[in-house]
Amino acid sequence: SIIEAIETHQHQEPFLTGRKVLISAGPTREKIDPIRFFTNHSTGKMGFALAEAAAEFGADVTLVCGPVAEKTTHPRIQRINVMTAEEMYEAMHVHFEEQDIVIKSAAVADYRPKLVYEEKMKKQDGEWHIEMERTKDILQSLGEVKSTQYLVGFAAETTNPLEYGKKKLVKKNLDAIVINDVSSEGAGFGGDTNMVTYVNKLLKQEEIALASKREVAEKILKFIDQDMKDEIR
Amino acid sequence: SIIEAIETHQHQEPFLTGRKVLISAGPTREKIDPIRFFTNHSTGKMGFALAEAAAEFGADVTLVCGPVAEKTTHPRIQRINVMTAEEMYEAMHVHFEEQDIVIKSAAVADYRPKLVYEEKMKKQDGEWHIEMERTKDILQSLGEVKSTQYLVGFAAETTNPLEYGKKKLVKKNLDAIVINDVSSEGAGFGGDTNMVTYVNKLLKQEEIALASKREVAEKILKFIDQDMKDEIR
Repeated sequence: SIIEAIETHQHQEPFLTGRKVLISAGPTREKIDPIRFFTNHSTGKMGFALAEAAAEFGADVTLVCGPVAEKTTHPRIQRINVMTAEEMYEAMHVHFEEQDIVIKSAAVADYRPKLVYEEKMKKQDGEWHIEMERTKDILQSLGEVKSTQYLVGFAAETTNPLEYGKKKLVKKNLDAIVINDVSSEGAGFGGDTNMVTYVNKLLKQEEIALASKREVAEKILKFIDQDMKDEIR
Repeated sequence: SIIEAIETHQHQEPFLTGRKVLISAGPTREKIDPIRFFTNHSTGKMGFALAEAAAEFGADVTLVCGPVAEKTTHPRIQRINVMTAEEMYEAMHVHFEEQDIVIKSAAVADYRPKLVYEEKMKKQDGEWHIEMERTKDILQSLGEVKSTQYLVGFAAETTNPLEYGKKKLVKKNLDAIVINDVSSEGAGFGGDTNMVTYVNKLLKQEEIALASKREVAEKILKFIDQDMKDEIR
């Protein structure tokens, strides 16, 4: 129908043409020894959906990702693989300056073992205390150095996600935040669907209903584009 | 050629027909909270290669595996998915009794967080001490209850692997052990090749040179079959 044709046309409008978009995705791994490590349940699917959608909307995408099984083939996506929070911090800062939009969807480890063993730790009787230290806060550090970049964070929470997400938006000097109640059915880690709340700097909330991560990604990018046009930052 | 035909025939000889083989594969994940966990680099490839090879040699295979990306389609492989060391312990003991051969190739976490948080732990300033407790030793517990089962362990080590592996063979009442120097090029976690030493109860060592994990798996199964025929247990 004509309406479908118009919708399809709108859908494929390359509104990000000429824009540079930096996206982080996936978990990081923090080594204890050559065999063991700490990590989290992120699979990178949301970040890859954002990268694919942004590239198809015309953007030049840099995708910094931790160890994930996801693959991407779009010619306008430059993929940079990292392993640790420290490596992700470096890669994000190296590429940050030249970006128009920066979306931090990675689930970066907040803590890492203070001591990394060169050889495999032999198990012993009894308990084992692992001392963990904070990793660098990537999003906070980007918020501190940002100039014209539109900076978007994610908050994946199980308790009071909206309240926590809004605090994070302000505290980290973000332009918007995508809030994810990972305890909801169909939302969050691993699955192919998501359900989020997009909150901009005016603390205006936009609910994005349960849909494929790709559809959710497209809606997030459209809200970002609208807020940039409206100069809400 | 005739020689190739004979080799092919020997290769495909279903010498495990009628045998029941239980194999564990992959890592386990030990939760800290709904987001974070502790795990290791095992991808399950060696265990899956053993399962596929055993099934093609005629065995009825039960494959207990942790979270891995590997897939198996052989109709004689029954796959049982587990997540934690505790779940793997339960699954291995449920199926142990009726087996002829049991191969523990999984990289089970030796430790798990003593406290598992129901909600995502919020990050705080400063350090964080994680108290870890020992998980049940699956291989040791199988060695304690075994009767006629031929029980094979794996030792993945970075320091003195041969010495450590032989001690483990004796201490855990195994019939054989496959020793993996995970610090060698081409051996161990993640890759598609391996290079191991098979040691039986007489402490006779058989070197299996660098080859695909599938070829290594076939050689391991042939050594096991030969030792069972020779009643070395």
